[in-house]
Amino acid sequence: MKANAFYAQSGGVTSVINASACGVIETARKHKSRIGKVYAGRNGILGALHEEMIDTSAESAAAIAALRHTPGGAFGSARYKLKGLDQNKAEYERLIEVFKAHDIGYFFYNGGGDSMDTANKVAEMSRKMRFPVTCIGVPKTVDNDLPFTDTCPGFGSVAKYVAVSTKEAALDVASMALTSTKVFILEVMGRHAGWIAAAGGLAGETPADAPHVILFPEIPFDQAAFLARVKASVANFGYCVVVVSEGTRHPDGRFLADAGTRDAFGHTQLGGVAATVAEIVRSELKLKYHYAIADYLQRSARHIAAKTDVAQAYAVGQKAVEFALAGENAIMPIIVRSSDKPYRWTIDRVKLSRVANREKTMPRSFITRDGFGITAACRRYLEPLIQGEDYPPYRQGLPSYVALRNQPVAKRLADFVIK
Amino acid sequence: MKANAFYAQSGGVTSVINASACGVIETARKHKSRIGKVYAGRNGILGALHEEMIDTSAESAAAIAALRHTPGGAFGSARYKLKGLDQNKAEYERLIEVFKAHDIGYFFYNGGGDSMDTANKVAEMSRKMRFPVTCIGVPKTVDNDLPFTDTCPGFGSVAKYVAVSTKEAALDVASMALTSTKVFILEVMGRHAGWIAAAGGLAGETPADAPHVILFPEIPFDQAAFLARVKASVANFGYCVVVVSEGTRHPDGRFLADAGTRDAFGHTQLGGVAATVAEIVRSELKLKYHYAIADYLQRSARHIAAKTDVAQAYAVGQKAVEFALAGENAIMPIIVRSSDKPYRWTIDRVKLSRVANREKTMPRSFITRDGFGITAACRRYLEPLIQGEDYPPYRQGLPSYVALRNQPVAKRLADFVIK
Repeated sequence: MKANAFYAQSGGVTSVINASACGVIETARKHKSRIGKVYAGRNGILGALHEEMIDTSAESAAAIAALRHTPGGAFGSARYKLKGLDQNKAEYERLIEVFKAHDIGYFFYNGGGDSMDTANKVAEMSRKMRFPVTCIGVPKTVDNDLPFTDTCPGFGSVAKYVAVSTKEAALDVASMALTSTKVFILEVMGRHAGWIAAAGGLAGETPADAPHVILFPEIPFDQAAFLARVKASVANFGYCVVVVSEGTRHPDGRFLADAGTRDAFGHTQLGGVAATVAEIVRSELKLKYHYAIADYLQRSARHIAAKTDVAQAYAVGQKAVEFALAGENAIMPIIVRSSDKPYRWTIDRVKLSRVANREKTMPRSFITRDGFGITAACRRYLEPLIQGEDYPPYRQGLPSYVALRNQPVAKRLADFVIK
Repeated sequence: MKANAFYAQSGGVTSVINASACGVIETARKHKSRIGKVYAGRNGILGALHEEMIDTSAESAAAIAALRHTPGGAFGSARYKLKGLDQNKAEYERLIEVFKAHDIGYFFYNGGGDSMDTANKVAEMSRKMRFPVTCIGVPKTVDNDLPFTDTCPGFGSVAKYVAVSTKEAALDVASMALTSTKVFILEVMGRHAGWIAAAGGLAGETPADAPHVILFPEIPFDQAAFLARVKASVANFGYCVVVVSEGTRHPDGRFLADAGTRDAFGHTQLGGVAATVAEIVRSELKLKYHYAIADYLQRSARHIAAKTDVAQAYAVGQKAVEFALAGENAIMPIIVRSSDKPYRWTIDRVKLSRVANREKTMPRSFITRDGFGITAACRRYLEPLIQGEDYPPYRQGLPSYVALRNQPVAKRLADFVIK
């Protein structure tokens, strides 16, 4: 039985999500007797709903191979969550209609928790509509919040970026502190969990090393304790480096970033949390500060991706196809750790129904008792994930990232209107 | 005649200023019959005033070699400008006293325009006080604002970081734009000149490529034209990437970063210019945005330094010593370009008196007529400077940067009080 495959990227992209696409497509190409063409959704699942698909068979082997070192989402991603089957049956039916029209028997959905839920529902709909589609989730998220898997592809590279940047900026500040900046604040992603902020902790090994303070979403912000810590760090080491998660909150649950600041017109000023923390340092301690907001730079920095992360991103794509061909359905490949040092991992899988709507949170035991640092257990977990460098090729001083042809697949159905 | 040497770092550090230190120390070590020990100022010139010097002869050859790939200022830098000879003769006399006490016959001052002025005045004072000190400036500044030299060591690596980051973030935004962020803003350094912002322009080659808008300090901010450009970019390409210099100003000369915003207590909100530009985009165009502030990350990112820049930083340090040994005095090594493509350069020198208090500004011909992009001439100038990668060694997933022993030199004089 031969059928085409459909692959889509979902949610916020990462510097290695294309490595998973590469794993899917290269592996599918090795099994031409079973898998015909791999179609990709233009802008994720919306591409399926609107029958806007890309024929990846038009891409050369070299172009597909180059996906492995190209950040962003090569086919476009989408922040679009399908509602439940009861509320929006029409969309699921449409997906199956499109799959039918294009002889698609495999669905690979590359995303986070919501996407795993969607993939599971598509599997259910496929059974109900008696059109067999093998549905496999491919894990991806910089937030590292999927359960069962040791880590989520995308996270390790953000972790490496944040650890490297913290270490580098700290050397800068340390050398300037006597006459200039004494406090440096780096804002990183992680609205709900402190995994990324924790990675900043890898930059140092002793209390004297930066970062001297990490602010986690898990720990309610204690301004007095924070200021005491900054002051002590400046007194003892001459400077202080702070890594702050965008999700850091006041004890009453408000985000620190909602500082109640207003612009000249009275509108709420949407500021980064780094600016808020900097203002606290300035007004309370009168210390000179600088702050950086990494924002998208951290999740697109393929130039400093972790080799381990790239390998895992590729592996979950490859295994997704191999599991599908082995008759598995409604599952997601996961990374299983068998050893910390050296890091050893294999790929297994879990049922999508078990993944959906379940978040992996950071254990309290990964944060020091004072709430400002990471523990040895956390370091043991994180350190393997940033191992190795996997540099992209360069041309004229810049990374040589691939732009695909993205040739459309001819439409066969009437337009579909999303309600 | 054999004498010791004094080396000091000055002003904002860079990812390659230690490569210049490496060039100075390694070259001095090759001429032991002429140069005794190389002392480094702890926290720059303040180290000389306070007689707080570091004996670099206590460092192994491997540690000194590792300076070549270590960002920040290994001995500490200082933002401290000596006043004119008339206003503060005591400080210059103190420098000469310290040099005398430690048998220092060579002064290598690694910094920007102000430091070149200081080095020149020390040379003058040395003549007046009849204590011969050979004074050589070693150029350094990410601002690229020193005259005569083709570029300033430190700039090329910031340029590469900004170009790479712009290219990477653009791929992220492009893939998310349909359902999420449409405008991405990257704030970069350059309070007085747009050299660093211009480097962002290297990320794209056609009008469709990011960055779609660059905001330069040289071009008064035209809000209507800016908004029209952002709107057109989103309409034509689906998204818009903006690189904004921290020095961008309103037509009346106020910095955009002084947005007149107030916090809940009525204090002026010190925001990055990126937040201001984002707020303009939000309120006027109702488009979803994200912004990043590179801040110190850009000038400490040794992990993505330009090979050309590292080589030049080392070369000006090496040549500073060689010029000194050849009998030159009160000069600064400069980089002379003989060819754009391939980039060919040699080291020459100019009199410090000609460098002092003269700034290199960006030619208007490097900015497109509309004020939002770079011209072919600008690209021709910038492109060679970001060539090549010069990766540091890694250990456990992080760059292996050196921490020197920084062994103090025993004091021989009474304390000096800076007035």
